[in-house]
Amino acid sequence: MCVRRCVITVGDLGEFGAVSRISGRLPQGRAVLLGPGDDAAMVSAPDGRVVVSTDLLIEGRHFRRDWSSGYDIGRKAAAQNLADVAAMGAVPTAIVVGLGMPADVPVSWLDALTEGFRDECAMVGASVVGGDTTRGDLVVLGVTALGDLGGRPAVTRAGARPGHVVAVAGRLGHAAAGLALLEAGVLPAPARQGHAPGTRNGTTARETPEREAALQAAVAAHQRPCPPYPCGPEAARLGASAMLDVSDGLLQDLGHVAEASGVRIELDPGAFEIGEPVAAAAEELGADPLDWVLTGGEDHALAATFPEEVRLPPSWHVVGRVLAGRGVVVPGREAGPGGWDHFRS
Amino acid sequence: MCVRRCVITVGDLGEFGAVSRISGRLPQGRAVLLGPGDDAAMVSAPDGRVVVSTDLLIEGRHFRRDWSSGYDIGRKAAAQNLADVAAMGAVPTAIVVGLGMPADVPVSWLDALTEGFRDECAMVGASVVGGDTTRGDLVVLGVTALGDLGGRPAVTRAGARPGHVVAVAGRLGHAAAGLALLEAGVLPAPARQGHAPGTRNGTTARETPEREAALQAAVAAHQRPCPPYPCGPEAARLGASAMLDVSDGLLQDLGHVAEASGVRIELDPGAFEIGEPVAAAAEELGADPLDWVLTGGEDHALAATFPEEVRLPPSWHVVGRVLAGRGVVVPGREAGPGGWDHFRS
Repeated sequence: MCVRRCVITVGDLGEFGAVSRISGRLPQGRAVLLGPGDDAAMVSAPDGRVVVSTDLLIEGRHFRRDWSSGYDIGRKAAAQNLADVAAMGAVPTAIVVGLGMPADVPVSWLDALTEGFRDECAMVGASVVGGDTTRGDLVVLGVTALGDLGGRPAVTRAGARPGHVVAVAGRLGHAAAGLALLEAGVLPAPARQGHAPGTRNGTTARETPEREAALQAAVAAHQRPCPPYPCGPEAARLGASAMLDVSDGLLQDLGHVAEASGVRIELDPGAFEIGEPVAAAAEELGADPLDWVLTGGEDHALAATFPEEVRLPPSWHVVGRVLAGRGVVVPGREAGPGGWDHFRS
Repeated sequence: MCVRRCVITVGDLGEFGAVSRISGRLPQGRAVLLGPGDDAAMVSAPDGRVVVSTDLLIEGRHFRRDWSSGYDIGRKAAAQNLADVAAMGAVPTAIVVGLGMPADVPVSWLDALTEGFRDECAMVGASVVGGDTTRGDLVVLGVTALGDLGGRPAVTRAGARPGHVVAVAGRLGHAAAGLALLEAGVLPAPARQGHAPGTRNGTTARETPEREAALQAAVAAHQRPCPPYPCGPEAARLGASAMLDVSDGLLQDLGHVAEASGVRIELDPGAFEIGEPVAAAAEELGADPLDWVLTGGEDHALAATFPEEVRLPPSWHVVGRVLAGRGVVVPGREAGPGGWDHFRS
């Protein structure tokens, strides 16, 4: 009788079995000259330059296995690196993944994680070209993404000039609203259990299906960001003067642009669109939705500055302007530090 | 009076303070087009291709802070990635580092770690071009190295053919001997305390200064590998048919070459030079030094196969030959699995 050992674990596979299982699920795209299985991979860098960005994600700090599925964790871990590459104006080509995990992790979870990485990379035509697996007490992900600028100059944080406009592409505040819902215990995480509308824990079933869907969408945004990847190279082609991905909160991240460019950034609080999931979560929790929009991270929107004469396509939404001076201000709101410091939070 | 708070910690600096402190200690070399401080770095890839390799190192599994200094941990973490790049026949150009650490890590330790990364990279002309810091309960290092092939084909594991010779460059068994000494408690780790010859813990002071120096050299090899970086591109230029870096043990790693190339590899046990540190440690612990040479990892020697007609320079030492068949054999020795499996060890 199979009682405890029905679940095949990573420990059962062993290191090389795990590597082989992961590699077998990873298609290799056009930029890949040599994929997984050797000391190193080889990736095309057609214009003679390569963009590179890395992030380290630790279980309990960046994700929780009871709040997010393996698949969502893979997608999110890939997304935050791919967004960094897009924020330079580049098209991501490849990622490599260092993966630490306990030996009792089910193989099904590893498969889901792998598929999450694979599918997020497929959004931009990139491939997982290599990695490293090791045992650890927690799941740890070291993700590095490479990208191709297609001959364009990189868009750094240092080119904003007085007179330029500030614009954003993608969602703001959704992930923060979803996290707040999870932390408040209002909504069960879909990763843990199936969810039937109107049967939530800890609250009465007073919402409409639309409201319920909006709250679920906020949680989903926390579990799986949806960065506006094509807007990165698009902004570069349009002549963006500075750009970054919003990972720690818009105010804090624009603070880096202000500092690197030696300018002041003034945001118009009335210019932001408050997404329905953000509005619904704010109502549910009695919060100010603009707080999440201005200080919430993890949606991986892109924020950029453009010379005033640039005609922006609908994907970019103007939210402020660049002035002479220092810092980031939002008239009518007190400017707290806002955002995320990993050693102080 | 300063009692407990004399030590400035990473938590005191905060995330951005830590990043700024790290970046300030990292010179940027010629291949760096954009260094730390933006969403991503930009590195030259002159021949339109880039080699990339990643590793994840977790405290307690890959290193111990009481057995190795921050400086040595930085050097070792960089070395094992740079060696992977060299093993493709490439010259390393850049690394990025994801760094997780507790808030109570002293800033002096972080500085030493940074300098370790910097100095190991300087050995090959590479630069630390970016990274990510986050808080964690343990020190975790996600290291990714990039490299340039200079127009040469990459040397994979798949090109060994019957009739080729097997050769190694660099040290074998030194790190394993040093680890065995540390595990046996024979020698205090220099990272923990100053060491005076003849005053070791747990043994009488019966060694000569030469013997003592040899044992210390074994421990030092465990703490800081010394990969033969230039031998990687050198082997590629000489026409190596397959190559890898020895990280899990020569037998196991050559097993990957045998499998990828579809060949049998026969090693000559009499062909190996036993280094003085390995011999001294074996005598101290009553061990067989050839065990460490054949199955010890972490020295990051390079192993390669070459067509028989290639005249090898002195840096390469022939230790076996390639035959038709499968597997790796050492005549006269029973072939155990040997080497390291992270999920089973």
